[in-house]
Amino acid sequence: MTERATARRARRGADTGVPSGKPAYRNLTNPLAPQRAFSDDRIAHIHDTALRVLETLGIRVLHDGARRIFGAGGARVDAAGQMVFLDRGLVAQALASAPGIVTLAGMAAGRDVALGGRHVAFIGVGGPPHVTDIDRGRRPGTTADMRDFLKLSQHFDVLHITCANVEPQDVALNLRHYVTTQSQIELTDKPPFVYARGTDQVRDCFELIRLGQGLSETEFRARSRCYAVINTNSPRQLDATMCQGLIDFAQAGQMTVVTPFTLAGAMAPVNIPAALALQHAEALAGIVLTQSVRPGAPVIYGSFTSNVDMKSGAPAFGTPEFVRAAFGAGQLARHIGLPWRGSAATASNAPDAQAAYEYLNSLWAALLGGVNMVIHGAGWLEGGLSASLEKFILDIEMLQVMAEVMITTDDDPGDLFDAIAEVAPGGHFFGASQTMARYENAFYAPLVSDWRNFGQWSDAGAKTATERANGIWKHVLNDHVPLVRDPARTEAVADFIARRTRDGGAVPT
Amino acid sequence: MTERATARRARRGADTGVPSGKPAYRNLTNPLAPQRAFSDDRIAHIHDTALRVLETLGIRVLHDGARRIFGAGGARVDAAGQMVFLDRGLVAQALASAPGIVTLAGMAAGRDVALGGRHVAFIGVGGPPHVTDIDRGRRPGTTADMRDFLKLSQHFDVLHITCANVEPQDVALNLRHYVTTQSQIELTDKPPFVYARGTDQVRDCFELIRLGQGLSETEFRARSRCYAVINTNSPRQLDATMCQGLIDFAQAGQMTVVTPFTLAGAMAPVNIPAALALQHAEALAGIVLTQSVRPGAPVIYGSFTSNVDMKSGAPAFGTPEFVRAAFGAGQLARHIGLPWRGSAATASNAPDAQAAYEYLNSLWAALLGGVNMVIHGAGWLEGGLSASLEKFILDIEMLQVMAEVMITTDDDPGDLFDAIAEVAPGGHFFGASQTMARYENAFYAPLVSDWRNFGQWSDAGAKTATERANGIWKHVLNDHVPLVRDPARTEAVADFIARRTRDGGAVPT
Repeated sequence: MTERATARRARRGADTGVPSGKPAYRNLTNPLAPQRAFSDDRIAHIHDTALRVLETLGIRVLHDGARRIFGAGGARVDAAGQMVFLDRGLVAQALASAPGIVTLAGMAAGRDVALGGRHVAFIGVGGPPHVTDIDRGRRPGTTADMRDFLKLSQHFDVLHITCANVEPQDVALNLRHYVTTQSQIELTDKPPFVYARGTDQVRDCFELIRLGQGLSETEFRARSRCYAVINTNSPRQLDATMCQGLIDFAQAGQMTVVTPFTLAGAMAPVNIPAALALQHAEALAGIVLTQSVRPGAPVIYGSFTSNVDMKSGAPAFGTPEFVRAAFGAGQLARHIGLPWRGSAATASNAPDAQAAYEYLNSLWAALLGGVNMVIHGAGWLEGGLSASLEKFILDIEMLQVMAEVMITTDDDPGDLFDAIAEVAPGGHFFGASQTMARYENAFYAPLVSDWRNFGQWSDAGAKTATERANGIWKHVLNDHVPLVRDPARTEAVADFIARRTRDGGAVPT
Repeated sequence: MTERATARRARRGADTGVPSGKPAYRNLTNPLAPQRAFSDDRIAHIHDTALRVLETLGIRVLHDGARRIFGAGGARVDAAGQMVFLDRGLVAQALASAPGIVTLAGMAAGRDVALGGRHVAFIGVGGPPHVTDIDRGRRPGTTADMRDFLKLSQHFDVLHITCANVEPQDVALNLRHYVTTQSQIELTDKPPFVYARGTDQVRDCFELIRLGQGLSETEFRARSRCYAVINTNSPRQLDATMCQGLIDFAQAGQMTVVTPFTLAGAMAPVNIPAALALQHAEALAGIVLTQSVRPGAPVIYGSFTSNVDMKSGAPAFGTPEFVRAAFGAGQLARHIGLPWRGSAATASNAPDAQAAYEYLNSLWAALLGGVNMVIHGAGWLEGGLSASLEKFILDIEMLQVMAEVMITTDDDPGDLFDAIAEVAPGGHFFGASQTMARYENAFYAPLVSDWRNFGQWSDAGAKTATERANGIWKHVLNDHVPLVRDPARTEAVADFIARRTRDGGAVPT
C-alpha cells in the first residue's frame, strides 16, 4: 500500500476501529409516505370500538390508588370487581392534554431525542433474560453482558436512546436496579431506561439519574430524563405494578410508553382489526391514568400487536399480520395525535436469515407506519428471550441503511448532463471528475456486508454475515474508551448505591 | 393423532408436501402508496436531461439495421461514428405508442400475467452461470440444475413468469437454446423466457413455444407469449445482439424488457440522479427502437441502477442508494406511463443474513417504488453469478409475506366489539368463538420460519433458516409431479429440435 493510500485509509477509519456512523444519524426524521392498512372510516370505527369497550365493558385495574385516581377524574368505578369504566369525554380530555411531541433529555449535550411528528428514534434490545453469541452460546444474562450491550449501544450513532439491554441475573432483585441504572449512567450519555418495578425502585433510579448529572430535584423534574415501558396484561387489565409505574412516572414528569401485549389469537381476538381495537382501548386507559395524575405528562402510544402461530400459540413477528398491525397502529396513533412506539422483532432462535427477514419486515412496517420510537431495534432474538451480540451488529447495519435512506435528500448532485457527457459510449466512470471528487463519501460504506467476489470472499475464510458480525462486536468492545465523567458525580452515585445497599435495597413489587 | 386431526392435517397439506401458496397469489396488485425519492420537478429534470443526452450526445448503436430503422424513423444518424441522435419528438411518439399495460400470455389457462398499473409479477433468478447449495457447494450450472429451478419456479404460486434460471453449461452454445426452451415448455405453464442471442436462435425459440402450445403462426403473433431482457452496454451504447433482439421481438409482437446496466460509479455517474438520467436515456433509446419497428410493440421500462463499492468497484445491492434509485426509477416509469421492471438483488456470497437483508431491502424498495415486474425474485446470489437453491426458498418465504400484505383487504373481521367482549379481563382468546371459527386460516402459515421455542428448536437439531430451506427444496423436487402435456405437441417440439440439431443448431451472435 502506498503512503498516500495508507493515510487515506487511516483518515477514513478503515484501520482505526469500527465506524460509529455519521453525526446525521443522531437526529432522524422520516420522509417515507405513511402507509394505510385501513380506510379512515375503519380507523374511526376501531377508535370508536375502543371507546365503547372502555365505556361499557371496562378495564380491570388491580391497584386501589389507580382506581381512586380514575374515579376522581370522573370514571365509573366498581371497586368490588376492580373494574373501571371510562367515558369518551374522559378519554378526549386526556388526549387533549397529552403532548404530541415528547423530548427525552439525554445525559450530555446533543443527546436529546424528540419523539412524535416525523421524528424517529431507535433503541436497542430491551431486557431479555438470556444472552447469546456464537462463541459461548445461550446463557443467563449477567451484569458483564449488560455492560457489553450498553457499550455497543453507546458506540453506534444510529441508536438514540438507552435500554437495559439484558437482565443482569447475577444481581439480586432488590439491588438489580442499581446496577442497571449505574451502568447506563457510566457507559452511555443517551436518555436512560428505568424499569417500573415499584415506587421504591423507581425513586432510587430517578435519584441516581439526578445525581449522575448533578441536577437539582427541580431540574430533574423539569424535563423527561428517563422512560419506562408499561405493558398491560391483555386483555383489559392493568396490574398493580404497571399502574404504580404510570403514577410514579407521571408525577415526576417522566415518560411512559404504554404498550398493550395484544397478540392476535392469544391475548387478543384472532383478527387484526379487533386486536388493534383492544390494543387501542388498553393504551387509552393507560394514557388516561397518566393524564389524570398530571395533565401534560409525557406518554407514548405503544403497540406490539402481532399474531401467534395458531398450531402452537407461539408468538410470531415480521409476519404479514405484523405488517398490517403496524400500519394500522400508526394510523391510530395519528388519529389520536400521540407519538407512536413500535418494534423490530423476530421469533427466530438464531441470528440467521429468518432473524434478518423478520426483523427487517418489522422495521420497514414500523417506518412505513410512521413510527417515532423503535424498541428492540438491535439484538432482540427468540421473541425477546435472548439478546444476541451478532444480531445486534446485523441490526445496526439495517438501521444504518434506513438512516441513510432517511437522511439522503436531493442535495446538489452536480450537473446531471455534464456528468453523463464526460464519458464516451462504452466507457466507464471510474476516473470521471465527479467520481474522483466524490468517491470517498459518495455511498454508504457497510458495516457487515461483504461485497467482494466469491474468490476473494472464499480466500478470506468464506465467513457468513453472522460470523463477520461476531468479529465486529468484539472489535467495538476491545476498542472501548470510557466516557469522561465528573468524579464527584460518579462518587455521589456510588455513595447513594452503597447507602441504599446497606439499607437492603428495594424489593420489586 | 385422532382421525379427525389426521384428516384436517391432510386437508391442510401439512403431510402432503410443500404448500404451493394460495390461488390469490397468482394475480397480485400492489396497494402500497408509492414512495418518492425526488420532487416532481426533479423527475421532470431527470427526464429532460435524458432527452438532452439523446438529442445532443447521442447513443452508439453497433447494428447497421438498427441505425437504418432509427434513421427511417427520423433520427439523425452518424454512420461513421455509429452514433444515433434522437430528438424529443421521436421519443414522445414512441412513448405514445408503447402500451401502458402489457399482458404476457401463459402456456395454460389462468397463467396470463398483466404488467403495468398496480399489477405486480414476480420472477425467479435469471441466468447465473453457477449454481450452489449447501450440500454440493458452488459449481457450473447444468441442464439438470436448470430443470430443478424450473420445477421450483413452477411449484410456487407467488412466481408468475418463468425464467432460464441457470445457464446450462453442459450444452453447447449452438444447442443450448433448445434445452432452455424445451425445459420451460415441459416443466412450467407460466409465460416463458427467451434469450435474445441472435435471430436464428430467437426464431427457433418462437417456433418451439408455438409448437408446444399447438398454435398457428397467426395465433402465436397475436399475443406476447414470451419475453427477453435487453441490457444496454452502459454508458450510451446498444450492441448488435441487443439491437437484433429488440427488432426480432418487436416484429413478432413479443415483449422486451429494456434494462440499462447503470451501476453508479462504474458504468454510470457516481451519483444516483445522474445515474438515473443515464438509465432513462438508454432505456428510452431501446424503447424508441421497438416502437420504430412496430408501433405498439410490448416493451417494459427496466432499471437496474445501484452503486458500486468505491474501494473495489464491486457492485452492491439492497443499499441505501439502491433504495433511492428504485424509488426514482418508479417515478420515472410513471412519468412516461410504461410498466416498470425492477430487481430483488444481493451481492452476498452465501444464503445468509446479508443475502436476506439486501434482498428484502431491494424487494421493499421495488414494491414501494410501484414495480410491476421483479426479476431475480428468488434464488439470485453473488450479484447474479450464482443461483442458490436455499436462497430460492428463503426468497419465496419473503415473496409470500409480501403477497399476503398485498392480498389482505379489510374484509369482514366480524364485529370488533363482540370479539373483545367475549373474553374476560386477564383471560385468553384461544377458545373464543371467532378463534375457533377462523384459526385454520386466520394467519399466514410460514414456509421456512420456525416459531418454536428455543428448547423445541434445539431438540429438533437447531437448524438455521438456510438449513431448513435446504430440506424444503429437496421436498419439492422429490415430490415433483410432471405437468400433463399433449403428446403430439411434445413430439412436435422434440422433432423440431432433432431436425435443427441435425442441421447444426444456431450459433449465438
